Amino acid sequence: MTIKTILGSSDLPEYLRGKKGAFFLSLSNTDTAKIEGITQAGIPGMIHLTPTLDAEFLCTGEVKSLKNIAATPKGVPTPGLITRAVHMLHPFSSLALLDLGLEVKPKIDYFPLYDFGVTPSGSIDTGANIDAVELFEKGMEFAEEYFCRNDYIILGESVPSGTTTALATALALGYNAHDKFSSSFSNAPTNTKQRVVDQALSGCEGEEGLFEKLSHVSDNMLVFNAGLVLGLQKRKITTVLAGGTQMAALLLIINSILKQTNQSISSHKLALCTTKWVYEDPNSDIKGLLEMLDFPINAYYVDFDFSLTHHPALKLYDEGEAKEGVGAGGALMYACLNGITKEQITRRVESFLQ
Amino acid sequence: MTIKTILGSSDLPEYLRGKKGAFFLSLSNTDTAKIEGITQAGIPGMIHLTPTLDAEFLCTGEVKSLKNIAATPKGVPTPGLITRAVHMLHPFSSLALLDLGLEVKPKIDYFPLYDFGVTPSGSIDTGANIDAVELFEKGMEFAEEYFCRNDYIILGESVPSGTTTALATALALGYNAHDKFSSSFSNAPTNTKQRVVDQALSGCEGEEGLFEKLSHVSDNMLVFNAGLVLGLQKRKITTVLAGGTQMAALLLIINSILKQTNQSISSHKLALCTTKWVYEDPNSDIKGLLEMLDFPINAYYVDFDFSLTHHPALKLYDEGEAKEGVGAGGALMYACLNGITKEQITRRVESFLQ
Repeated sequence: MTIKTILGSSDLPEYLRGKKGAFFLSLSNTDTAKIEGITQAGIPGMIHLTPTLDAEFLCTGEVKSLKNIAATPKGVPTPGLITRAVHMLHPFSSLALLDLGLEVKPKIDYFPLYDFGVTPSGSIDTGANIDAVELFEKGMEFAEEYFCRNDYIILGESVPSGTTTALATALALGYNAHDKFSSSFSNAPTNTKQRVVDQALSGCEGEEGLFEKLSHVSDNMLVFNAGLVLGLQKRKITTVLAGGTQMAALLLIINSILKQTNQSISSHKLALCTTKWVYEDPNSDIKGLLEMLDFPINAYYVDFDFSLTHHPALKLYDEGEAKEGVGAGGALMYACLNGITKEQITRRVESFLQ
Repeated sequence: MTIKTILGSSDLPEYLRGKKGAFFLSLSNTDTAKIEGITQAGIPGMIHLTPTLDAEFLCTGEVKSLKNIAATPKGVPTPGLITRAVHMLHPFSSLALLDLGLEVKPKIDYFPLYDFGVTPSGSIDTGANIDAVELFEKGMEFAEEYFCRNDYIILGESVPSGTTTALATALALGYNAHDKFSSSFSNAPTNTKQRVVDQALSGCEGEEGLFEKLSHVSDNMLVFNAGLVLGLQKRKITTVLAGGTQMAALLLIINSILKQTNQSISSHKLALCTTKWVYEDPNSDIKGLLEMLDFPINAYYVDFDFSLTHHPALKLYDEGEAKEGVGAGGALMYACLNGITKEQITRRVESFLQ
């Protein structure tokens, strides 16, 4: 299991080898996930619980707000299993949750759960209705005030239907991002997704301002974290975006903000790390998305897969289901940098499903 | 795999068990390495690249300045593989490079690469031409100014033909060090080596001063690190010299400086750790060298060997080729102190050669 470079320098992750990494899990609901057939990130009828359950399972190894681990209809378990396995094999130096508009708060007593007074965003086909300026500023403020005891921050997310809102966001900002976004499905529901994205885009037609567009078509996770990441970079805190095309969309938002405000960013301490399943996905193009940035970016994937298991639910990952989420890509990088092997992760993930 | 005591107290390494260790790799070129047949530490015709490639491989797992890992003519791979394996299995708390006169700088973006404005030293048969006083003082200053966040420092080196310059140094300083120095060869090229050392010694005949002698016959690594180690000891920073007879020569330089200036050293926090291959080498005598010191020294070796592998290139180590370098001995001690096994190291080193 090794870290492969997509773009940028191979030094950055190596420099983090053995160092202390904090893991932030940003959690949000968007009503977009309630559209029939748009996502398989969760249990039908209870998709809204997915980020809550992911947070509970990552922190405690139990899902407290429901009996079973969030699973897709075909029975693909959440990629949060990978992140949890890594955390058990080599714990993150700290683990914190960011509530960016949850319907149900996770039942967690001890872990920091940052509350920014954000409510779930609306469905983008009728308008997300996000106060994007305020939310972005909340992200910036959090970055400014955060007392960082660690060497770097790994930022993951759990947002059902987040690739749909990410696609709409990138298109609304003028990026040629058609066919570049990933999906939790192996056969992505392009018709439904396309209709929703088209409606979202027509809903913000005529809007000139960047933040006005985000208010219509984006999600809380993207807007808040654009502010958070910009703020962390201003403080030169090394940040690893743990995710795939959603995290690429976050970078595109930052890119647009920088261009509009004539600012630049030192992205020397910024990286993205995703899974092999995203990198090799024939239906999306993470590299293409990142190449649209005007600043240089370090991007990696970890070549972990489930070739060492016979568990049918896990085998589905290698067939293109699920792919990424709950910071799995960044967690795998953290595992690589701390001597954890593919076999150890596989056995640990299997143990969760027994 | 255990740490065996050569001299001194077995407590010191045990006291470091589980503690945070920084690894410094000191890198230098001497034109002595250009003498035909003097060293096999590298690729013929490109020996000067060895420290550069060792640094790149240790930090990133890749050799960026050349396609293949530095290997000797018989195909013995650099002992840096061992150090890299240890770093992957239990990362050093920090990893820094000291440029003590490199022909080619390593292609590294993120790791600290300390530049002291030192150029490669000359061949000792015609004169090393080192400003030894200035270089020694640079080492002292670096020790004084270094902000140490760790519990101890492991100091390794990569200097092709460094055992030749170490032998000449010890002899020039009046130590009876004949036949006590190691070599990267199993059948050391004593004729060539002896001729070069004789020429070096006759070149500094008549020189009275200690630093004048060093200027003629030594190398940058030895002179700078004598200052560095003395400075670290003054600050009571625990230091493990990771190497064999070259590190012993460094201690002999310190010994001579102390005697000349009527100073003493508290060597309580100073140790040397080398490999079994050096300790058991019938053609050298690390213990004999260390016994010439006027201050007590803690010295160890780790009984790691390649008995668990069938890889022919690695088997050559057990036949007496290569032996030590890139801090392998100290890295093996660090591995022992952090629960890493001989099998883990063997498998990891094998994986580099696939």
